[in-house]
Amino acid sequence: MNAPLPSHVLPPMERRPVPAAMHEALKARFGERCSAALAVREQHGRDESPFDVAPPDLVVYCESTEDVAFVVQQADAHAVPVIPFGVGSSLEGHLLAVQGGVSIDLSRMQKIVSLEPDDLTVTVQPGVTRTQLNNEIRHSGLFFPIDPGADASLGGMTATRASGTNAVRYGTMRENVLGLTVVTPQGEVIRAGTRARKSSAGYDLTRLMVGSEGTLGVMTEITLRLYPLPEAVLAAVCTFPSVDAAVRTTIQIIQLGVPIARCELLDANTVRAVNLRDKLGLTEAPMLLMEFHGSEAGVAEQSATVQAIADELGGQGFEWATTPEARTRLWAARHHAYLSALQTKPGCRAVTTDTCVPISRLADCINESVAEVDASGLSYFLVGHVGDGNFHMGYLVDPNVPAERELAEQLNHQLVQRALKVGGTCTGEHGVGLHKMGFLVEETGEGAVSMMKTLKRALDPKNIMNPGKIFS
Amino acid sequence: MNAPLPSHVLPPMERRPVPAAMHEALKARFGERCSAALAVREQHGRDESPFDVAPPDLVVYCESTEDVAFVVQQADAHAVPVIPFGVGSSLEGHLLAVQGGVSIDLSRMQKIVSLEPDDLTVTVQPGVTRTQLNNEIRHSGLFFPIDPGADASLGGMTATRASGTNAVRYGTMRENVLGLTVVTPQGEVIRAGTRARKSSAGYDLTRLMVGSEGTLGVMTEITLRLYPLPEAVLAAVCTFPSVDAAVRTTIQIIQLGVPIARCELLDANTVRAVNLRDKLGLTEAPMLLMEFHGSEAGVAEQSATVQAIADELGGQGFEWATTPEARTRLWAARHHAYLSALQTKPGCRAVTTDTCVPISRLADCINESVAEVDASGLSYFLVGHVGDGNFHMGYLVDPNVPAERELAEQLNHQLVQRALKVGGTCTGEHGVGLHKMGFLVEETGEGAVSMMKTLKRALDPKNIMNPGKIFS
Repeated sequence: MNAPLPSHVLPPMERRPVPAAMHEALKARFGERCSAALAVREQHGRDESPFDVAPPDLVVYCESTEDVAFVVQQADAHAVPVIPFGVGSSLEGHLLAVQGGVSIDLSRMQKIVSLEPDDLTVTVQPGVTRTQLNNEIRHSGLFFPIDPGADASLGGMTATRASGTNAVRYGTMRENVLGLTVVTPQGEVIRAGTRARKSSAGYDLTRLMVGSEGTLGVMTEITLRLYPLPEAVLAAVCTFPSVDAAVRTTIQIIQLGVPIARCELLDANTVRAVNLRDKLGLTEAPMLLMEFHGSEAGVAEQSATVQAIADELGGQGFEWATTPEARTRLWAARHHAYLSALQTKPGCRAVTTDTCVPISRLADCINESVAEVDASGLSYFLVGHVGDGNFHMGYLVDPNVPAERELAEQLNHQLVQRALKVGGTCTGEHGVGLHKMGFLVEETGEGAVSMMKTLKRALDPKNIMNPGKIFS
Repeated sequence: MNAPLPSHVLPPMERRPVPAAMHEALKARFGERCSAALAVREQHGRDESPFDVAPPDLVVYCESTEDVAFVVQQADAHAVPVIPFGVGSSLEGHLLAVQGGVSIDLSRMQKIVSLEPDDLTVTVQPGVTRTQLNNEIRHSGLFFPIDPGADASLGGMTATRASGTNAVRYGTMRENVLGLTVVTPQGEVIRAGTRARKSSAGYDLTRLMVGSEGTLGVMTEITLRLYPLPEAVLAAVCTFPSVDAAVRTTIQIIQLGVPIARCELLDANTVRAVNLRDKLGLTEAPMLLMEFHGSEAGVAEQSATVQAIADELGGQGFEWATTPEARTRLWAARHHAYLSALQTKPGCRAVTTDTCVPISRLADCINESVAEVDASGLSYFLVGHVGDGNFHMGYLVDPNVPAERELAEQLNHQLVQRALKVGGTCTGEHGVGLHKMGFLVEETGEGAVSMMKTLKRALDPKNIMNPGKIFS
């Protein structure tokens, strides 16, 4: 433990307030869509992280690429920070206006720009949420699989390189964003990528923007890959005598190459929490929630293979769900895990970890991390996209008790170091934000971070795009 | 047709020769591994493109990351170009030393650095070829699927964002490179990415390097995803009354979501050429070569679906191959297509196109391009990774007849414009190199190319890394 622990006290940074001339220009164009009201600013100065609120000076509700370009041109002219904002479900402090400036609210940019079912592609505005997208394209027989749990905006999901429950089969935002319209830090509009499934046309600007956390530009249109709704979908739940047994089952599923679509771990604490909130009546033991996509025969074959593996490792009480309603009940357990866990300790906030490790090391990493938190006495829950080697400990801390925050961060740091030692990453899907800057350096080294800073300086020399995030 | 046609006459560029002090320093460290012999230099100044040879001043055979770092540090100190070289199978002039300098031959860096079968990962040096890799890991029950046809080096495949026959199911180098060791243009060694399957840790330096064609650094270690060898593999060939019918069959396969592993088109010209060279005795008609991976039952189900689609569109003479030997015979047709076609016109070179379009537009694009080349009277062949929407026309030109080159480039340009109009790309997998700079601007616009140039200038301010490629 060489690096200092991450802290939830905001780092002291110089604010760069919006000058009067810029405020007037924005007011003139946007009228009531430009707000300086404290309640609005505070709502845009927080996310789901345990950080204190850091409100922007102004919030502008944009409705088009041209709106966004106008705001960024103003910000460029006055060297004022801008922060793209979707639905506020980030977990790492991405949205906090630590240097002041303008929050660009994209939640009204909710149009499906174009849908090409015959090409399995769709182009959306960044404020479209994943649930909205799937509702609006259902008639086409297609779906967009990336599901980070929260009903996040697709802009936010792109900005954090999100993934979630279906990534084990369908990949992450990295694999599923085909192209982007981007407003550059100079307020110019460029297009990266095409609707073709692959391309070798120059530097991969699309992938550079995916995961850049709003620090290199504002994405205003996003072209995504879609998939045919599978002929058959089968969900299953199975409990295990230990977290270890559940994880070892997962490892074998992946090593055998079973094309499982979802493979999620919930520990007993999490199951207890969702039972309490949603009256699900699930057995309160470590659990795998799985889903199989394919033909009727393929799904039957996959699930039989998995059941055989689980049986050998003590899996019990297999419960199958083939109807959408039964599947919804099972997946409610996973989707409500975060909120349910928060409710078990009133007033708490969660410090969530996000390591992702090579699959063979997952059991050891989880077992050691569970032993540590059990020994610490801190309340926690554990969920995992275990098919990817990704899991989240949620340490439940009282925000008014600094010792709890500190303990959580110490456990988090130990967990990250364990993951890095076996070739893993400090963040599988949440991003770096304000919280993991130290971890990023530990993971990738000063050299790689220095290259990232060079890229940032080159594209955004005035440091106006979400400054103070990813690296200091 | 506003942009000038691409030309195979090398653009006039100022050479930046290796100064004596640098030559001596390289001689001192590398001895006979540093060569100025004309034959060696000429061998390193060409690739499979129709460009004339442009030899480097020196060729250095590197055997380690430290060797590469030493050469690049020297190049940085003296502002001399360096060009990474694998096996020389590029198609777009990537390897030509248009400004002189040093060719860094990586073909002796042929070690498997580490294999972690339980994690489905491997780390290789850049000179390992795809065939070597698959031979060396076969004992593990795993394989690396990316197959661009040529037995390319994995360094070259990474640098061009290659894909090939298996991409429809397994993705391209973009999806399958997990991490990299890179020597930066300043001769520093950095590490990008981890062995975890996904990550949100900062800018995606891995994806920025993948497809950068040697212009941003030299990759000296590459960490790749592997896959379990499928339980069952079934290859099939089927002929069609027209190219159109073969392509429409493909479109339906993709739109239905059949998880086909390979779906390759060969036109009658190509089949005729491979029959002539390899005595394969295949029916000389437009043909789909397909492969299915999965369980025995899954493969049977997929192939039945595909056969039903093909039957409706006039597919005939289905031939199945389940043994490795029978599959090898079928795939020989695809893998020898390029060389076989070249042999039909002695002394010719091929101008190959590489557009990739959204799947529903593939039939129209191919049909119009075939009609055009038929009308032109130029010899050609047509192959396609049609499952991805990617196809290659190979226009066979006599390099001594400028009118043939010009005609080929005119047809290529018309084909690219057709692809761009429907949302496609000018290059699905070969890269830009010297050849497609104009196309890149047409495709993505001045704004995006200007962003690429900004990135290049920031990382390589002395413009020593493979200068003169991708953009001028």
